[in-house]
Amino acid sequence: MPAQVEAPARSFRVRFANLDRETICSESETIFHAARRAAIRIVGACGGRGVCGTCMVRVVSGDIESLQPEPAQAAQRSPWVRACQARPLTELVLEAAPRSVATIVRAEVDGQGPQRVRPAPAVTVHQVALAPPTLSDVRADADRLLDALADCGAKRLDLQALRELPGVLRGSGWQVQALVRGDEVIGVTPVGARCLGLAVDLGTTNCAGFLLDLETGTRLASLGIENPQVGYGADLVSRLNYAIRSPEASAELRRAAVTAITELARDLCEAVSAGADEIVDVAVCGNTAMHHLLLGLPVRQLGRVPFVPAVQEALDLKARDVGLTVAPGAYVHVLPNIGGFVGADHAATLLATEDRWKLGTTIVMDIGTNTEISLIHAGEITTVSCPSGPAFEGGHIGAGMRAAEGAIERVSVEDGRLEVQVIGEAEPVGLCGSGVLDAAAALLKAGLVNQGGTVLRGHPYVQEEDGRRSVMLAPDVAFTQGDVRAVQLAKAAIRCGIDLLLREAGLAEAALDQVVIAGAFGTYINIESAVAIGMLPPLPLERFAQVGNAAGVGVAMALASTTLRERAQRLAAQCRYIELGSLPGFEKAFLGRLPFSERGRR
Amino acid sequence: MPAQVEAPARSFRVRFANLDRETICSESETIFHAARRAAIRIVGACGGRGVCGTCMVRVVSGDIESLQPEPAQAAQRSPWVRACQARPLTELVLEAAPRSVATIVRAEVDGQGPQRVRPAPAVTVHQVALAPPTLSDVRADADRLLDALADCGAKRLDLQALRELPGVLRGSGWQVQALVRGDEVIGVTPVGARCLGLAVDLGTTNCAGFLLDLETGTRLASLGIENPQVGYGADLVSRLNYAIRSPEASAELRRAAVTAITELARDLCEAVSAGADEIVDVAVCGNTAMHHLLLGLPVRQLGRVPFVPAVQEALDLKARDVGLTVAPGAYVHVLPNIGGFVGADHAATLLATEDRWKLGTTIVMDIGTNTEISLIHAGEITTVSCPSGPAFEGGHIGAGMRAAEGAIERVSVEDGRLEVQVIGEAEPVGLCGSGVLDAAAALLKAGLVNQGGTVLRGHPYVQEEDGRRSVMLAPDVAFTQGDVRAVQLAKAAIRCGIDLLLREAGLAEAALDQVVIAGAFGTYINIESAVAIGMLPPLPLERFAQVGNAAGVGVAMALASTTLRERAQRLAAQCRYIELGSLPGFEKAFLGRLPFSERGRR
Repeated sequence: MPAQVEAPARSFRVRFANLDRETICSESETIFHAARRAAIRIVGACGGRGVCGTCMVRVVSGDIESLQPEPAQAAQRSPWVRACQARPLTELVLEAAPRSVATIVRAEVDGQGPQRVRPAPAVTVHQVALAPPTLSDVRADADRLLDALADCGAKRLDLQALRELPGVLRGSGWQVQALVRGDEVIGVTPVGARCLGLAVDLGTTNCAGFLLDLETGTRLASLGIENPQVGYGADLVSRLNYAIRSPEASAELRRAAVTAITELARDLCEAVSAGADEIVDVAVCGNTAMHHLLLGLPVRQLGRVPFVPAVQEALDLKARDVGLTVAPGAYVHVLPNIGGFVGADHAATLLATEDRWKLGTTIVMDIGTNTEISLIHAGEITTVSCPSGPAFEGGHIGAGMRAAEGAIERVSVEDGRLEVQVIGEAEPVGLCGSGVLDAAAALLKAGLVNQGGTVLRGHPYVQEEDGRRSVMLAPDVAFTQGDVRAVQLAKAAIRCGIDLLLREAGLAEAALDQVVIAGAFGTYINIESAVAIGMLPPLPLERFAQVGNAAGVGVAMALASTTLRERAQRLAAQCRYIELGSLPGFEKAFLGRLPFSERGRR
Repeated sequence: MPAQVEAPARSFRVRFANLDRETICSESETIFHAARRAAIRIVGACGGRGVCGTCMVRVVSGDIESLQPEPAQAAQRSPWVRACQARPLTELVLEAAPRSVATIVRAEVDGQGPQRVRPAPAVTVHQVALAPPTLSDVRADADRLLDALADCGAKRLDLQALRELPGVLRGSGWQVQALVRGDEVIGVTPVGARCLGLAVDLGTTNCAGFLLDLETGTRLASLGIENPQVGYGADLVSRLNYAIRSPEASAELRRAAVTAITELARDLCEAVSAGADEIVDVAVCGNTAMHHLLLGLPVRQLGRVPFVPAVQEALDLKARDVGLTVAPGAYVHVLPNIGGFVGADHAATLLATEDRWKLGTTIVMDIGTNTEISLIHAGEITTVSCPSGPAFEGGHIGAGMRAAEGAIERVSVEDGRLEVQVIGEAEPVGLCGSGVLDAAAALLKAGLVNQGGTVLRGHPYVQEEDGRRSVMLAPDVAFTQGDVRAVQLAKAAIRCGIDLLLREAGLAEAALDQVVIAGAFGTYINIESAVAIGMLPPLPLERFAQVGNAAGVGVAMALASTTLRERAQRLAAQCRYIELGSLPGFEKAFLGRLPFSERGRR
């Protein structure tokens, strides 16, 4: 009997006509997955599990295989199918449903920062009119240009700028604008060409991009897209484990991060009818892992005790060395890391929120898979990172999903009844982060969950199947005993970080003048719920400030001003980073914060 | 009748077993040509015309088509065939005859310069022993390294060095050597790794490479290879015309120049059992056209009045941006151009010969297709470039060939009889540059050519066919009326350059204390012949110095010492470059020097 040989999977070209994008999709993967890999911005709130119905596409031409029959509404012969439940059988042309084109909610992009930054860009524009060469003035093009730029300190040209110089000079009648960065001319353009800058907050889940006019500091456009690395794992640890497998694996993750920035550059420029080559400066922040993966730095040592980054200080690198396709001579400024997993995004957050915290004892925190917390007190900044896990981003939660249509974003208890609030005019299909937090608080308040976190039997909301209990928040949305445990681990990690920071400084909770909460999740949470489950200390509500994507604001500030870059570098260097695990009593403190009781065993 | 369709040419893999190299050869090109394209170093003294027999190969396996029957000795069933007369019929494995493996004559590599240069390399080696990170010292790898290097001014790391840092540190017990250039760490290697430098004189015809130990300044190896760009034309103008055709054509020439350097790096490193990645610094010189073609700079404006280079000043570029495969963080220092076609090679020649000329009024010249001449007088350097053409390199001469076996290198007159001296123990098959010069002088002396340059009838040496006269120097070697004219144009261009430089300075020829002649051709010429035909002024012979490849010496000096780089930059800047064509009376001066009379009509 001959050995069975599997035929190699066939692959098909899949084109998203209304997005002007295409990719290759194997017959064995879903269209949703292929789109993710290619950073094509299809919403997939539930991550492709087939429950949310946010990734709708219509087949314009070609054939697909459906993995699941489309739900009720599809029976009415709707042409729309879920991309996560469809595989290609032929080449395809698709249309993405308008509501399925990812436009990340504004809060994931926007944040509050100083009202106005005085522009002090790294790249300045200098108009020059040169005398053309003659037989009696045969100076070389570069020397002629540098002579004219003597006052601004330019002493050399980028190689690519030099390659373009003779053509640009002769094509524009010897009147050009020189783009100068430090002592280097990084580009030469015809007079009037724009001078754009791109700031990127490269988040684990979402990437936010901001396009600035560098001369005025004006924000021209902003956009959020999903990080294409999500295809390699929702959490950082999965990605780090993938990256250390092989240089090729690491290169894949690097390319995914580069793709995110390239896509942001392209789409943002399109929005203002510019080309990505008009971007002459870039600033990027991200946590240490994102930072390393983007730059192709090794992460093996970052994932092991004592969690040492390859580099902490801010970097100024040629964008082309990083692989970014912007103006050929442009640099990318990568904000400084702080320590361990606390990266440049926290440095950017501190920069953006400095106005708020410099006046009193403050906690600044950015809640995510890792929650970075800084305590600012008496002129000192002490920083820790808490492994809070993805629960508050909807990860590792049975019905977890992104903050999109159909997501339960609020849960409350009215007269013993659970009330849910859903995003959009849709049936609830899952829970986003703020819903997860609210659910825990509501179940605790309603007595469905006890102080120890056990879901109690005998309540009409509570189901039990194979010994596993869950609370039905909606007909299709259960909150399980496992979900409660995930919330406990997350909130204990965060609170324990706050506890230990205060202990190190010899402060009581009441000494906190302010708690600044940055990040998309932090923007939407109900502070009372967070206090109720013990994630945040019980302070008067007015001491809490929810500031949105402060990291995004910070990186845009750093793009606009070299003074602020230096400030970010000083802030990062000022942070005393403490590895939580190295503190005595860490484990006890963490265990003491697992129960929901407001006064945990400290 | 159907249209005739030509079958596309087939291509075959051709391997040179004893050179460990292979390339692809189409059935329609000769093996010699394919080897040239790939910079495989097969001697081809006559340029592939099938007359010199210096490109011998033996077929180890496969079949060839012979274009010409092999000459006499081949009738004795010799297995050796001329690569320029053979095309592949199948895949081939060949052996290159040992004497056909190009080893460029030493004079094309070696030159005279200062006895000793005090090493002051751009890249310095610093041994560091770091404390490994602990939970209480979690500084990032880069910051830890830079802290240890604080004394030497290092402030940042090259991205590729940063990528390698964590692995090297952990692989070598935290004891490493940092390679520092200015404020940048360009590489980190295990303790004891070598620190090599490569200097390249990128000549139009030949490229000379020098491998130095940067720490001691010792020359470890040197090598000359043919410039693979020769395949695109022997002279610069052909190459410039090719380059301006299209960006692709320009890229081909760039790649050919890069290949030359890569081959030199590889072979030189092999000679000392090193890898090319141990080369941590590179210095390059070449004429302006070679300089531009190597760097991918546009040459259109360089080929047109007023012949303006893209850049004059010395450049320090990342070797990877130039396309060189050496240590990933290495830079290449490109010496400064002077003006027009007078490039970095002349700057290097001035640097190498400064000891000789700083004491008196001196002419420094490098004779080639373009002859660069500097007059140094009263602390000023005035420089011109003379379009002398390729005659003195054997180009545009009927029987011209490279200085290889079978080349006539000397011609003299004894009792009215012409005597020739041939390189190697071979029958004369052509004339190399010094032979061309001698031939003209000898014919003039013997009265076979008159003062006006006409070959005279009625002498037994003189043949006339279709009205074209030529002088038979050997049974197979004729020197034609056209060759005499080519020599006249060349010598007139050079002498006119000298004349006008002296006129500008208000000097008589007798005021010249010294004439320094650099370059391979200049090393071999008979000064008396050059004076006899009026190429050089009639000065006492002891005022002439033939110094060999001074450009090669100069670029190696610049590699060894940053002080000398600055000196070269100052020398280049000090040169007052004059475009010969812009001088009044240029044409008259040139025409006046065409006749062979020692006292030309000035």
